Amino acid sequence: MSIPTTPPSGFRDFLPEQVALRHDSIETISRVYRSFGFQPIATAAVEDLQVLLGKGGGENEKLIFKLLKRGEALDRAQAEKAELADLGLRFDLTLPLARYYSKHGSLLPHPFKAFHLGPVWRAERAQKGRYREFTQCDVDIIGADSWGAEVEVIGAICAVFEALGVAHPTVLLNDRALIYAVLDKAGVAPEQRTAACVILDKLDKVERGRVFADLEAAVGAAPAKVLETLLMSETPDRAALRAAAPDAVAGLERIQAALKAGSKHPDRFVIFPSLMRGFDYYTGPVFEFRHPSLSGSLGGGGRYDRLTANFGGQPVPACGGSIGFERLMLILEEEGRRAAGHAPDAVVTVFSDDLRERSLAVAAALRAKGLSADVFPGAAKLKHQFKYADQKKAAYALVIGPDEAERGAVQVKTLASGEESAMSLDEAVAKIAARA
Amino acid sequence: MSIPTTPPSGFRDFLPEQVALRHDSIETISRVYRSFGFQPIATAAVEDLQVLLGKGGGENEKLIFKLLKRGEALDRAQAEKAELADLGLRFDLTLPLARYYSKHGSLLPHPFKAFHLGPVWRAERAQKGRYREFTQCDVDIIGADSWGAEVEVIGAICAVFEALGVAHPTVLLNDRALIYAVLDKAGVAPEQRTAACVILDKLDKVERGRVFADLEAAVGAAPAKVLETLLMSETPDRAALRAAAPDAVAGLERIQAALKAGSKHPDRFVIFPSLMRGFDYYTGPVFEFRHPSLSGSLGGGGRYDRLTANFGGQPVPACGGSIGFERLMLILEEEGRRAAGHAPDAVVTVFSDDLRERSLAVAAALRAKGLSADVFPGAAKLKHQFKYADQKKAAYALVIGPDEAERGAVQVKTLASGEESAMSLDEAVAKIAARA
Repeated sequence: MSIPTTPPSGFRDFLPEQVALRHDSIETISRVYRSFGFQPIATAAVEDLQVLLGKGGGENEKLIFKLLKRGEALDRAQAEKAELADLGLRFDLTLPLARYYSKHGSLLPHPFKAFHLGPVWRAERAQKGRYREFTQCDVDIIGADSWGAEVEVIGAICAVFEALGVAHPTVLLNDRALIYAVLDKAGVAPEQRTAACVILDKLDKVERGRVFADLEAAVGAAPAKVLETLLMSETPDRAALRAAAPDAVAGLERIQAALKAGSKHPDRFVIFPSLMRGFDYYTGPVFEFRHPSLSGSLGGGGRYDRLTANFGGQPVPACGGSIGFERLMLILEEEGRRAAGHAPDAVVTVFSDDLRERSLAVAAALRAKGLSADVFPGAAKLKHQFKYADQKKAAYALVIGPDEAERGAVQVKTLASGEESAMSLDEAVAKIAARA
Repeated sequence: MSIPTTPPSGFRDFLPEQVALRHDSIETISRVYRSFGFQPIATAAVEDLQVLLGKGGGENEKLIFKLLKRGEALDRAQAEKAELADLGLRFDLTLPLARYYSKHGSLLPHPFKAFHLGPVWRAERAQKGRYREFTQCDVDIIGADSWGAEVEVIGAICAVFEALGVAHPTVLLNDRALIYAVLDKAGVAPEQRTAACVILDKLDKVERGRVFADLEAAVGAAPAKVLETLLMSETPDRAALRAAAPDAVAGLERIQAALKAGSKHPDRFVIFPSLMRGFDYYTGPVFEFRHPSLSGSLGGGGRYDRLTANFGGQPVPACGGSIGFERLMLILEEEGRRAAGHAPDAVVTVFSDDLRERSLAVAAALRAKGLSADVFPGAAKLKHQFKYADQKKAAYALVIGPDEAERGAVQVKTLASGEESAMSLDEAVAKIAARA
């Protein structure tokens, strides 16, 4: 019986063209983040379970791929009916960042502008567009409580979309403080706050009437009516909002104004008072990127000032955002994008074993000029080698047969046209470089 | 009690400068591999245990970080005292390549020149220089049984070292066929072959006298003497070897000649008959890269023609090599290498909240010229912002105060000299671009 060749459910293989497009996109993201002064950090895929579970565990418990203890430690755990796992795969990049900053903060600039790209793993049921291994592209500023941090993070992410040639998303802006002020204004008791936020957080997925009914049941009819007017409208009454939460609105307007001033698309920055982005994590401004060709978000983030609390450090202000890389790739693939420059400039055929060294020398001459040259690695008829050059999408196939070898020449075949001509090696290099 | 901030044993965090050097090295490796016509592939970190264990399991069993089953499947496994894990982290990139090629081979060029870069995980005891997560940089040719494949793989790896500015390693060449022919010649019975190879494989780590004694015990005194003469010498008698194994020596000499012809360091390609590279994996030529500043190898590889056997496909010839990335990084770090261009060209200070938009506009103008500009993301005294610019190793710090804002000017401070002068934005951009 043979072993299956399909990756496990929710995991993926990538064909060369896909890898190239993913790689180039990641490179663009890194380059843009760096151009804003963010510095790359890297952490291991694996963390102590204690780190991943935090103090409680809770929601995350189910997300984690846990690593079985090994050897005697496993035997002991089984005998004692104790925890069988000691390590786990990271399920986001924020917890590792918090641990990293708690450990290495004193070695880093202050404030610290970080970016962190890499795979994360979640033990969720796999479904179309939802994977168990996927890439995150986080950008964070630690140690700045100024609204300038939000502007930097959102500005850098918008610049990524521009550099990738993706339509500028709509950027929804909100502030936890605005929601809390409106809840107070509406007369929602402090102990009902979380319940109200959980219900409002469902506006994205659940029909509005249902959300309103749930709100009424949770906080009463009159407060629910106020919340509907101030928070649930997509074009809320700014004056009424400002009256309810003057500081929070002023703060958001300052962020909005700075982003508009720096953008070719000032209309895309929208204050959107119902935006929650989950309910127990962020502590201040939150934001989300919406793209016309996606139903959900293309990324988002916010301020989370309790970052390092679990690691016993001083509380440190932090603000970060993330690009939904897999969704971004969906957009690029749907637009038919391809990575440029990943096909070899030339396939250098090998006429015979005796002449392989000639082909190798021709390839080396091309590479010395910065061109890519793929020497056919087997022994096969020229016809097969030309087919190989087509499969590789090379621009040219070169032949160095006995005649060419004797004359120091190269036969250059332009694969698109089928046109062939013999020339000196220098001429061939110049011809190929001119096109590349 | 606070949660620990140190990564788990054998796992690592990387500071920004380390990430930058690792990233640039990986980019150089990709670029060189691509310039030889190799195409990138990517597979998931996680594979079915069945894939990782192969038909038997054996040696690999102990290496694998296994992922605990989840939810009901785990409860069932515990109740039934069945296997607790279903998935595992890949411990090399070759098994995933074999599965990948078995699955996707029909969509790929033939022969297929692949490269595969990424982390692998091994549940070994962590020690200095040995990690439980480390990066591999594999390059493989599948579907070519020609010696040209070995030349391509070894040539591409040597080109990587050259592109990285690392001293050209000594490349040891051997062939499984040469060892077998010598064993036959020495009168070693076929059933003693594996035992003899296992003993010879220890020449690297064990004192020669001991190896010889073990050989004598395993195959008898007279055969051991022949093996000592032909295989254990570092400068073996080529004529005697050729007499014992004419085809294998001719094959190796052909590879060696082609590599010498294409190299600025022809003396570095050495036929080395005791090189084993493990004993139950490779089927033909094997090679290893030795660097003067390392005791072990800097990489290696060989021909392994049974690649896809476990996946039920047709047998397919394959040849591949790998760079020891972590050892490579050791060499670069010991040489004091740093990634270039990872510090921002300028830190743009923020004089006050009211003037933040001016600073953002200046930064945008710099980025539009391809420069990197780091806007200070907080609110702090200029003195602190200059210190931040030093921490970021920026070349310039820019100030746009009320005076500059009114005149449309920028104060440019050269951080190395402390020199300051005011100029127009265009002049500032030109000055910074001229240095970058």
